[in-house]
Order: sequence, then C-alpha cells, then structure tokens
Amino acid sequence: MTDANRNKLKIDFEPIGKRVMVAPGTCLLEAARQAGLMLNSTCGGIGKCGQCRLTVIDGEVSDPTRDERALLGASALAAGERLACHTRAYSGVKVNVPATSLVGKQRLQLNGEDDSLAPDPKVKFYSVCVPPPTLEDTRSDLERIAPVYILQKDKGGYTADPAVLRQFSPLARANDWIVDVFVRDDEIIGAAPSDVTPLGVAVDLGTTKIAAVLVDLKSGEELAVAGAANPQIAYGEDVISRLTYARQHDDGAEILGGSVRNTLDNLLKQLAEQIQAERQQIVDICVVGNTAMTHLLLGLPTSQLSVSPYVAATHLPMDIKARDLGMHAAPGAYVHVLPGIGGFVGADHVAMIMASRLDRANDIALGIDIGTNTEIVLVNPKNRTYICASCASGPAFEGAHIGDGMRASSGAIESVTISPDGIQLKTIDDAPAIGLCGSGIVDVLAELIGCNALSKVGRLGDSNKYIRKGANGLEFLLAAGSRSGSGRDVVISQKDISQIQLAKGAIRAGLETLLAVADTPAEKVAEVVVAGAFGAFLDIRNAFRIGLLPHLPNARYSQVGNAALVGAKRAVLSTLERERAVNIAKRATHLELSTYPNFNRLFALGMQFPEDE
Amino acid sequence: MTDANRNKLKIDFEPIGKRVMVAPGTCLLEAARQAGLMLNSTCGGIGKCGQCRLTVIDGEVSDPTRDERALLGASALAAGERLACHTRAYSGVKVNVPATSLVGKQRLQLNGEDDSLAPDPKVKFYSVCVPPPTLEDTRSDLERIAPVYILQKDKGGYTADPAVLRQFSPLARANDWIVDVFVRDDEIIGAAPSDVTPLGVAVDLGTTKIAAVLVDLKSGEELAVAGAANPQIAYGEDVISRLTYARQHDDGAEILGGSVRNTLDNLLKQLAEQIQAERQQIVDICVVGNTAMTHLLLGLPTSQLSVSPYVAATHLPMDIKARDLGMHAAPGAYVHVLPGIGGFVGADHVAMIMASRLDRANDIALGIDIGTNTEIVLVNPKNRTYICASCASGPAFEGAHIGDGMRASSGAIESVTISPDGIQLKTIDDAPAIGLCGSGIVDVLAELIGCNALSKVGRLGDSNKYIRKGANGLEFLLAAGSRSGSGRDVVISQKDISQIQLAKGAIRAGLETLLAVADTPAEKVAEVVVAGAFGAFLDIRNAFRIGLLPHLPNARYSQVGNAALVGAKRAVLSTLERERAVNIAKRATHLELSTYPNFNRLFALGMQFPEDE
Repeated sequence: MTDANRNKLKIDFEPIGKRVMVAPGTCLLEAARQAGLMLNSTCGGIGKCGQCRLTVIDGEVSDPTRDERALLGASALAAGERLACHTRAYSGVKVNVPATSLVGKQRLQLNGEDDSLAPDPKVKFYSVCVPPPTLEDTRSDLERIAPVYILQKDKGGYTADPAVLRQFSPLARANDWIVDVFVRDDEIIGAAPSDVTPLGVAVDLGTTKIAAVLVDLKSGEELAVAGAANPQIAYGEDVISRLTYARQHDDGAEILGGSVRNTLDNLLKQLAEQIQAERQQIVDICVVGNTAMTHLLLGLPTSQLSVSPYVAATHLPMDIKARDLGMHAAPGAYVHVLPGIGGFVGADHVAMIMASRLDRANDIALGIDIGTNTEIVLVNPKNRTYICASCASGPAFEGAHIGDGMRASSGAIESVTISPDGIQLKTIDDAPAIGLCGSGIVDVLAELIGCNALSKVGRLGDSNKYIRKGANGLEFLLAAGSRSGSGRDVVISQKDISQIQLAKGAIRAGLETLLAVADTPAEKVAEVVVAGAFGAFLDIRNAFRIGLLPHLPNARYSQVGNAALVGAKRAVLSTLERERAVNIAKRATHLELSTYPNFNRLFALGMQFPEDE
Repeated sequence: MTDANRNKLKIDFEPIGKRVMVAPGTCLLEAARQAGLMLNSTCGGIGKCGQCRLTVIDGEVSDPTRDERALLGASALAAGERLACHTRAYSGVKVNVPATSLVGKQRLQLNGEDDSLAPDPKVKFYSVCVPPPTLEDTRSDLERIAPVYILQKDKGGYTADPAVLRQFSPLARANDWIVDVFVRDDEIIGAAPSDVTPLGVAVDLGTTKIAAVLVDLKSGEELAVAGAANPQIAYGEDVISRLTYARQHDDGAEILGGSVRNTLDNLLKQLAEQIQAERQQIVDICVVGNTAMTHLLLGLPTSQLSVSPYVAATHLPMDIKARDLGMHAAPGAYVHVLPGIGGFVGADHVAMIMASRLDRANDIALGIDIGTNTEIVLVNPKNRTYICASCASGPAFEGAHIGDGMRASSGAIESVTISPDGIQLKTIDDAPAIGLCGSGIVDVLAELIGCNALSKVGRLGDSNKYIRKGANGLEFLLAAGSRSGSGRDVVISQKDISQIQLAKGAIRAGLETLLAVADTPAEKVAEVVVAGAFGAFLDIRNAFRIGLLPHLPNARYSQVGNAALVGAKRAVLSTLERERAVNIAKRATHLELSTYPNFNRLFALGMQFPEDE
C-alpha cells in the first residue's frame, strides 16, 4: 500500500467492477465520481431526487438519514438499498449499482443552428512583461501593467477592483512580472501565469433544467458540458408558484435565488474539473433564462412580477460580478444576463431567436421554445417586428406530472408505434424501458388517436387490449414489468393525458392568438422553428396528430434543440452577438395572452384532440 | 407618566442639570446623547479611550467591566467613577459629569482656501412622472422610467443594480410613479419620493483622526460636520506598524479595514441624524487618505506596501459601491477614492494640493500637510511638475506620545508665552488647562529656547524655576494641579521633547531633501502652504524658532487648515474637480526620501534646535 493510500478504504462498485480508494467518511456518490462512475443525481446530492440509489452488499456505512427513510421506505432500506449521496463509508464497502442509477449519455441539446463564429469575446487578454518596482520606480502595480494594454488599445481610463488586485499583486511578484491579464472594457477582471487558456461559460437557466457549456474564449472551441435540475423545483414546479413562494415568505426570494446560485457555482466547478482547469480561468459567464429565473438569480424584486400585470424590474441586459452571485471564477469576472422582452418572455427567448436566426428570416416565421414555460415568437421580416408571448405549459412535456414520466436519458421511451401486431418502443440507448420522455408521450397519444383509443375530449376508450383499469382510472400499458428496466409496469394513465391536454392547450392557444393578433393567416407562415430539448426529438407529424401544432400548409419545420444555450454560448464568445441580442430585444414586443378576448376559447379548443387524418 | 415613558428610567446629569428618560439597560453614553449632551468618546464607545468618565452619585448600574478596571483603577472605581460607555442604568440614576468629559466645540478645520464652486456633481437628479404599468403596457420598471432622463441626457445605455431595483420597484408603486431618481453616468443608483435633497459626504481619512462633512449636492451648501478617532490606532499609531499588523495576522487587514469601515458608517449615521435626513439620501461619497489608509479601507492588498520599495496596488481613482464597504447610503451609491501619487503619498495630498490651489501657483511653492504622516510637495509652475514625499513624523504634533498631550479641544493649551513675570497660557474655550495640543507644544519649546532653558540637542536645563525633576526625568511645569482642569499638574517632560525632535527632524529633513533634489535654492520659494488641523493653529514664527521649518527668506506663508477635507468636498460637489485631481496626480512624482544619499544626515541635523534669534 502506498503512503497516499494508507488509511484509505477500498470501495467496489458492482456489477461494473470499478474500484476506488477513498478517505474514511467519504460519501458513496463522491466515491463513484472518483471511480469515474457518473450516478444520476439531479438534486446535486442533497437526498431529494432519489436517483442515486444503490445497494450496499458488504461493509460498514453510516446509518440511513431521514431523507433516505422518506424516499426509500423501510423495506428497501432493510434490503440494503441506500442513496449514494447520503451514505458514508466507514470500512471497505462493496455496493451494487443498478443500471437505472447510472447516467446514460444525457441529451444536452447543443446542435442546431450553431453557425461558426469568430470569437470576439467581451473579455480581452494581454500578455504583460514589465520590470519589477524599485525604490526609484514606485509606480503602483496597476499603473505598472496598464500601459501594456492601454497602448495596445489606446484606452484612457482603466481600473480593477480590490478583489482583483488582491489576486494580482502577489501573482505578479510570484511570476517575475510576466503574467496574462484579462480586461473587460477598461477594467482588469483577473490575471494568470502566462499562456493559460481563458474560459467562458454559457448557461441556460431553465425552470426545470439547467444546462451549461464551457468554451475556450480564444478558439471558440467547446470544452465541456454539464447539467443539473433546477433546485427551485422543491418550491414549485412553475414560475408562478415559485414567485408566490417568494412573495409569501420573508426570505423566500433569497432561498430560491440562493439555491440556484449554488447550483450554478457547482456547475462551474464540474465544468472546470472536467478539463482540469482552475476556476480563476473562467473570465466570463453568460446566462439566459425566462424573466422569473433571471430575476430570482440576480435577486431582482419579484413582487410586482408575481401579480398582474406581471411587470419585470428590468428587461435590460445586466452585468453583475460573479462573486456577488456566489460563483467562483476569475476574481473580477462578470455574469452577463442577456436582455429580455416583456412579461415572462426573457433572455432565453432572445437567445433562441438569435441562435435559430429568426431575426434574419426572410419570410414570416414562428419560433416555439417548449419547456415548463413555453415561449412563442411570430417574426415578420417586412416590418422587422417580433411579437412574443409566454404560455404556462407546465413541465408535462419534460416528463413531470406524468406517472411514468422521466427526462430524456437512458431507458426513456422516446418513440412509440402501435400497430395491430403490438407496440413498438424505441428507448434511449436501447436500454430496457424505464419511463416516458416528452417525445414518447406525444407518440403514444398520436398512436392512441390513430387506433381510435382516444376521444376528442381526451378519454381513453376500452377498445384496445392494452388499455386496462389502473389505480388512477384507465391506463395504457406500454411495457410490462417483466420487460421493463425498473421491474415495474410502464403505463400512461387518464390522469397523465389530462396533464398533456393542459400543456398542449396552452401552447396551441398561444400560437393561434399570436397569428390572430398579428392578422396573419396560417398559409403565410413560411418557417417554424421548434426549440427545446423536448422539441429536438419531437415527431413533428405526431405533434400535428395530437393538435399541439396548428396546420400551417406552407411551413418548413426545423428542430434546433437547446437554441437558448447556443445563443448564450454565442454571446459569451462574441461582443457583436451581445449587441445583436440587444437589437432583438428592442424590436420585440410582448403580448400578454390574457388580454386577447378570444384566448380562453382558444385554450379550450386547444385541449381537444383532432380526428386522425 | 405618559405611556411612552412607562417602565422608563430617569437619568439626571449633574452639574449641568439635564434629564432624560431611557429604557432599562441603556448605557449612560447613549443616555447622554439622548439628553443632547455630547461626551468625549474618540474610541466610539468601546471602552478604550477613557474620555467619557463620569461619577455615579445615586442609583443602580451595571458592574464595572474589565476595561473600566484597567482604565480607571480600583480607587477611582471605589469613588464611583465609571466610563459612560460601559455603564448601564438599571434604575433611575444621578451622575456627575466632569467638564473634561464634555465635548468642547471641536476644531474641524474646514476653512481655508475653499473657493466657491458651482455644484456639478457626478450624481445627477431627475424627476420622473410616468403612467403605471397595465396588461397592455408591460414595459419593465427600468425601461418605464429611463426615457425620462435618457431624453434629457441623450444617453444610450442605462442600468441599475439589483439592490437599487429592490428599492425602486416598491417605491415607484407607493408613490404613484412620481419619484426622483439619482443617476451616475448610465446607472441609476437610488430613488426617493420627489423633492428630497440629494446629499454627498466628503471624508478625510487620517491616520489619527477622521473628519467628514455632509453637503447638499444641489446648492453646494455644507449641512453638517462630524469627526472620530481612527479606530486603527489600537493596532499601531503609524501606518507602518498597522501594515505590519496586517501582514503578520491572517485576518489583520480585514480587522483594520473593517474597523475603519464601521467608523465611516457611524459618521454617515451621525451626519444624517444631525439634519434628520434619511441615509438613502446620501448618493455620493468622496474619501481621501494616505495610501495605507485608502488601501486598508478598500481591502486592497498591503503586503507589498508594507515592505521596501513600498508599492501601492493602485494609485488610480477607485469607485466602489458604498454597501461593499459596509456603508449605508443610497442602495447603489459609490464611494469615490481620489487618485494617489506614489508610496504613501495618497489621495489626501492630491486633495490638499487642489484645495490650496498649489496646482495653480505662479511661483515655486511648498505645501506641507502635517499629520501622523506628513506629506510635502514642491511645486514648480515652470515645468508644471510636483515632487512629493512622505515623512513618518508620527502623531506627536497631534498630542499623542506626549505625556500631557491632547487633541485640540476645550481645555487644550494652544499657545504659551514665557516671560520673566511667569507663564501665560491660552487654552481653547479659555477653559482650565487640561493638556497641550500641537500648537501649544511648539510654543513651549520655542519659549524654552528663548529663555535658554533648552539646548541645541534638546536637553532641558535646570536654570528655569518651573523646571523640576519628575517621574520621567526633568520636566517643565505649565499649570499646577490647583489651577488645571484635571486637578493634575500639566507638564512637558524631557521624554516629550525627544518625541517632538523625532517628528520635527523627519519633516525638516523631508523639506530639505525636496529642495536639494529639485536643485531649488531656499530663496526661490515664493509660497508655503501649511495644511492640517495642527498647522492651522501653529505659530509660524515659533515653527522657525524650533527649527521645524527652514528659513525661506522670500516666502509668503498661509495656513489652510484641513485642506484635504476641503479637497474631498470639492470632489464630491464637482465632476470637474475630480478630473482636476486626476491631472494633479498625473503630474506629480513621488520621491522616496531614503533614496537620497544625504537624507540621514539631514534628519540628524533636523532634530537639533537652532539658536534663538
């Protein structure tokens, strides 16, 4: 045993056969990480999501916690089931990791219309090599280095804040005054020994999911991606319930904002670790999200946003020091939040319009970013206006509120065909089915309509042999427990269908309202961009069959994935793209859907299912 | 008894005859404040300065603390003496307040060359009156109000930070969208109901004393002044010992910086209370101080400043949010620190040069700002250069390290004449003598030289009848206890004289070195400006007699008081004056005195006393 491993404990992960040595008291989630084994943990390891479960076969571990008792139940605990995040090793331990706990290759949509882009980042980099101070030359540290980039840029003023100078003064002395400095406008925001790669991070702060990408600001290359669940889910699944929580609790806004700031800081940590970089190399961060998300993140006031007429404190771009948001990066690094549009239509929608080039469309175009909050834009290139609206579609298409719903990861049913011969399922990674992700849900409903098993108002019939009476009324059996990855039946219930009707009704009504308000006939729409992780895998034909999308006879469809994240990435790479975002936000007007007299009728109609073609 | 006074305790202050009702447990310093009685308390009420002593005649109070036992001693405590700041009333109490504990009218030098100035503050004020939001007009709060001043100023971008928007959004709604906003460059830094007076604060952050003035930014009028001891004194009396403390203790810099930030916040509170203003009306703050003082205030790194070659992290002007310095003002208000020059010659010297118009001198001029750190400038209008140096003169001229030294307040001996008939003393407020302030110390030495009682090397002779053997060697009796305000003899000792020699030697050597380095003969100097609270009351003739100042045959002398504070005030009132400060700092060069080969010899010579004329 080497010195480094003295006193360390051996942890064996079965059936994969990975082994790692850890210090006593290490939690098994961390041990798995060190073994290169990624366990599901959308709650970030706080014992809330229940996804990191495993079975302790042998060895001494910590006692079950209250969270584990609540999530796993007595019988599972008795069988040795535990949450990896809440279980600490006190001796060598052998555990069994079920496939359901292992992270499949997660779909973080980054493809789509990501044109190549010459990096032109807001933060510039200068190599500094100056003589050290002497009693004859007592210029201050900042004045000593500033001429190097001042001359390069012909700038007048320059500054740095105390935190940056606290880093810089010892760094310069430790490196013989040969260092790289990172400069944003006229402000030095960080420094590093020479030839360190400056990094940027783009974040799409979704109501349900958070996605982040790490880029090389010199080459524009994408270096790492990471994702997490939005921890605010514990305080409400949609933006209105979260804002209500914030309004009704003295420290509500601080709790919600603090939780997401903490998650973002963890994502920065994960990204840096993936490429073994120092966090001080992260010199710029761009964040997009809907209005509620960015307001809670920045600690902007939300009382006025939570009640009619739902007014933002600001929709202008914001620049806040990362450290003021609890995020560890270069000491003076800023978080740039892109501008928003109006109401809940925020920076993520601007980023989506930018990434999907809707601002450069030549014909009338619709953009739809489907998520827990769905944003829609109708672009008219003639008068260069964008009309935007937000629909409270809820998280059903992201798998939430659906009994066997799940996110798009290994074992999720992503497409379904029902034929007289039976049911054909396609799952992610071709793993045994565990549940349904959004695209699978749409497919099931379309196929049920196709075989006349689902009525116009959304009732399951009993004509199909896979429809049976379940605990929550009628349900359609997709995969029996004997074949599934979880050992349980995978079904879609009448209750699930009602959830989907609410979601699709809201989106459809939003689309119809925008077309009506802009006096645009359906045949004039030439292009439809469907964004969002769900939208990327959506079978567009089935989206028509269930009535999620209206019939637009002349439209081309494109599915662009997480365009909001692509837009954020463009903004972190390019000052010009930030200006483009400002111009998009300026040209866009927000329509509060409820002010349209016909909206409620359109919503009711939108909940119905059409007759199949 | 009214309801408000139920359960309150009656505190009587004798012999003044003031009475106040306070809550049980209130400390007597606070009770005195509420009675409108200002007790001396340069430590800010933490039991360190011993200046708020009084005698409890009757009533139940808290037990003596360790600080009181250390400062007052057992016999004084037995006689009922207490520190007001450490004594809490538990019943009605009657106390006797000696005159020595009462604040005399303190000299905060604000006169001098304070030319009238048309206010042109960095922070502008706009009256806003806009329609409230509706479902049809959901522009964000910031976009709703911005056009009002954007149009007035033709500005492109505008912003506000989250703290400002947290104030603004509810304020606008509570005032029907009729409010005043305070704007700095393109940033809203605060808001108020309409017609509130915007206030600015200027601060001279001295090594020993802190002085602050509150101004009306619209009229330029001075509204209030306040002062306090620099609490860092507890960690060292001069800048080097404080920087050493910061270097040798992990949290040393934070302790030193935190203490002075806390004191500045208290001064803001006092200033606002004096005119019954809200602290949110304070929209701008300008601070000057030497390099060590501003570095500790802002939390800039000081390790490199504390060792040769004594290099600042920055001498450029700094703008830091007041809240980041723990100062309560308008939510987005900044603290502006004026630029410094080099080494320890900082923003206070720039402010002094500006206030005393040395940058506009037509002939060769010397400026001397005497304090714990003494800064000197030699101005040559021919080539428009300023050569500056800093002398570690110590706090002797501010009354510290002198047995009976005291600050310039009631009862301080400020001038002395010794004649064959006896000793004539002039004290501040003509109160019975308690001790000596700086100008009195200079006078005593000059008069002792005049009557041949003090040798060239600084030894007291025994030829004078008032010279006697004391506890610390020979001493000169100025006022016997029977006549003094403290009941104790007031003397100046051989040890005190040695302290003064060190101080005057440092200043004199600095002056001689500057003249030598600039190759400027004494007769070429046309003007001498003496700044600082001490300098204001200095008898210039006696300054020559003790050899503090060199003989400059053609020089006019002016005494300008606390010119650094006046300069800070000009900067808070005027953007142009801030630019002027930057220009002064750019033209000034710093001379490290120790690099001059002859410096040590000049220092030794400077400690000597000249023969009297």
